[in-house]
Amino acid sequence: MKKRYNLAVVGATGAVGQEMLKVLEKSSLSVNKLRLLASKRSVGRSLKFKGSRFKVEELKKNSFSGIDIALFSIGASLSKKFSPLAAKSGAVVIDNSNAFRMDKNVPLVVPEVNPETIKKHRGIIANPNCSTIQLVVTLKPLYDAAGIERLVISTYQAVSGWGKEAVDELIGQSKSVLAGREAQVNKKILPHQIAFNLFPQIDIFLNNSYSKEEMKMVYETRKILEDNSLKITSTCVRVPVLISHSEAVNIQTKKKLTAQKARQILKKAPGIKVIDEPAKSKYPTPLLAEGKDFTYVGRIREDISHPRALNLWIVSDNLRKGAALNAVQIAEIL
Amino acid sequence: MKKRYNLAVVGATGAVGQEMLKVLEKSSLSVNKLRLLASKRSVGRSLKFKGSRFKVEELKKNSFSGIDIALFSIGASLSKKFSPLAAKSGAVVIDNSNAFRMDKNVPLVVPEVNPETIKKHRGIIANPNCSTIQLVVTLKPLYDAAGIERLVISTYQAVSGWGKEAVDELIGQSKSVLAGREAQVNKKILPHQIAFNLFPQIDIFLNNSYSKEEMKMVYETRKILEDNSLKITSTCVRVPVLISHSEAVNIQTKKKLTAQKARQILKKAPGIKVIDEPAKSKYPTPLLAEGKDFTYVGRIREDISHPRALNLWIVSDNLRKGAALNAVQIAEIL
Repeated sequence: MKKRYNLAVVGATGAVGQEMLKVLEKSSLSVNKLRLLASKRSVGRSLKFKGSRFKVEELKKNSFSGIDIALFSIGASLSKKFSPLAAKSGAVVIDNSNAFRMDKNVPLVVPEVNPETIKKHRGIIANPNCSTIQLVVTLKPLYDAAGIERLVISTYQAVSGWGKEAVDELIGQSKSVLAGREAQVNKKILPHQIAFNLFPQIDIFLNNSYSKEEMKMVYETRKILEDNSLKITSTCVRVPVLISHSEAVNIQTKKKLTAQKARQILKKAPGIKVIDEPAKSKYPTPLLAEGKDFTYVGRIREDISHPRALNLWIVSDNLRKGAALNAVQIAEIL
Repeated sequence: MKKRYNLAVVGATGAVGQEMLKVLEKSSLSVNKLRLLASKRSVGRSLKFKGSRFKVEELKKNSFSGIDIALFSIGASLSKKFSPLAAKSGAVVIDNSNAFRMDKNVPLVVPEVNPETIKKHRGIIANPNCSTIQLVVTLKPLYDAAGIERLVISTYQAVSGWGKEAVDELIGQSKSVLAGREAQVNKKILPHQIAFNLFPQIDIFLNNSYSKEEMKMVYETRKILEDNSLKITSTCVRVPVLISHSEAVNIQTKKKLTAQKARQILKKAPGIKVIDEPAKSKYPTPLLAEGKDFTYVGRIREDISHPRALNLWIVSDNLRKGAALNAVQIAEIL
C-alpha cells in the first residue's frame, strides 16, 4: 500500500504557502494528516484543501510531533529557529527561505537538475531562490551538452516575489495613478513607486555593490550545478508585473552550440517548454507562464558579439516552479 | 544680431512632436516663423507655442519654402519621401526616423558624443534611436578613457517609445485588469497585453533572430562611436512603463577600469547625472528621469565574472533626450 504522509505547511497563509496547497492538491503525494501553521496573527483563519477546511494553528516548538514532511515558507530568521526543531522531531524540512541554502550540510535541490543530492539530507533540504530555479532548469541541459564559462543575466522580477504586500502595493498604486492621484509608497515594503515604474533593487545591497538577490543567483547556481568555476554576473530588477519572473540570459559555452542545437536540447529537457517563433510574436511572457508548472524558454539566438555565446529569454511562474511546485516536487521524491 | 530661424516641426501632433515644442520653448534657438506640419487628419488642430496657438497644416511637397530647419518626427517611409524635398528647398532636416540613420552621407548625431560630424551634412542629419542615444552618451567617456571591446545589453523600454497609441493601450488595459475585466489587445499596436506584463519584442524580427530595435543599437552605436570592431549584443524588452527607457549594460573595456574611476569619469561627462548610492536605494528609475534632460547612470559595479568589465544601469526620458531634446540640441549647434 502507498504510504500516506503527515504534512505540515509552515507559513500557510502567505503567497507561497497558499500556492503550495494548490500544488499539493494535484500532487501524487498521499496526504494523511495536514497541519497548517502560521504566525499568531493568522490563527483563527482556515484554508481549503481538497474540499475540506483546515484551521490555521500557531507555529510553536512542539508543532511538528508526528509530522513526516514540513514545507516551510516563512522568513529566514523564523526558519532558522523552527526548521531544526522540526528536523529534530523527525520531520524532513523543505525550506523555501534563504536560511540554509548555502549550508554545506543542506542539499539545495531542483528536481530536474540535481535530484540525487536529496538523499544526502540531514533533516533539512533547501529550495533555491525563485530566480535561480528557472535559470538552472534551463542551464543544466546546455551545461551537460557544451559546458558553461560565463553568464550575464538581467532579470525582470514580479512583485509577488516580495510577497502579498508588494502585490497590494502595485495594485493600489496603479489605481491611484490611473485616477490621477499621487501613488502612496510604503518604503517598508518596496523602496520606490512600482506602478508604471521599475528599479534595480531586490533585497539589500552587499559590500561588492551587488544586491543580495544578485549574489544569490551567483552562489546558488554554482552550488546546484556543482561548479565553483562558473563566472556569473547579474542585475536584478523589480518590474510592475504581478506574477512570473523573466530573465535575459547571455550564456558563454565552452564548446560552440548553435541556436538550433540549443533549441533541440531544450525541447527535450525536463520541465521546459520552448516557445520560439519570434516572427509570429511567439515567445514566453509573464502572463503566458502564470499558473503554469513549466519554465518557458524563447528568443534562442546566437550572440553576434561572441563566437561561443547564446542569448536566451527565460520565464516562469515565480510562485509555482519558483517556490511551491519545486518544494512539492522534492517532497514527492522523498 | 542673433539670427532668427524659420522652423518647421513635421509630425507636430505626435508624442515626440509635442515634446519638441516643449523643448523648443526653452531652447536658445531664436524662432522667427514656426510651421506645424502633420498628416491630413490632424489639419484643423492647433498647438500652443510660447503663449500663441499655431494651426497644424497638411504636410505637402511645397511645405518647406522659406524654412531653415525642419524637425521631422514621422514614420520612416513618409520621411524618405519628404526629407529630401525639404532639403532640396533649402532647409536642413533633422530626422528622428530610421530612414537615413545608416546612410553614409547622413551624419548620425548625439551632440555630447560626435558634434563635429554635423558639419558634414548634405541637407539631412539623423537623430539616433532613443535607446541608442542614452547608451552612447554614457559609453563615450568610458570609450575615450579605456576603450570598449564588447557590450551585453538588456533594455526595459517604455510604451511611449512606440507612440501615443501604445501609451493608451497600457492605460486602457491597466484599467480593465484592475476592474477585473479582461484586457483588450489591439495587435496592430502592440503584439501582447502590456498591462502587468512585458515582452521581448520591439519592432519586427530580422533574419538573425534579433529584432530590428536590437540591431539598431548595434549599428547605430558603431556608427556614432566610429568603431565597427565594437562587439554588441542586445535584448530589447517592452515593459509596462509610460516614459523613460532603462538599460542594464555590461561593458567589457580594453583597459581595466575600476568602478570608482568609471564613476569619476561619468560624473564629469556632459549630459550625465550619476545617482549611485544603492545602500540608500538611490539609483536611476524611469519616474525619476521623466521630464528631465539628463541621462542618469547608477549601479556602477565591477563585474565579478570578468577582469575588465563593468555593470551599469542607464535611464533616460525616451521622449526628451531620446528624441526631441537631442534633435533640438542638433538644431542649436547648426
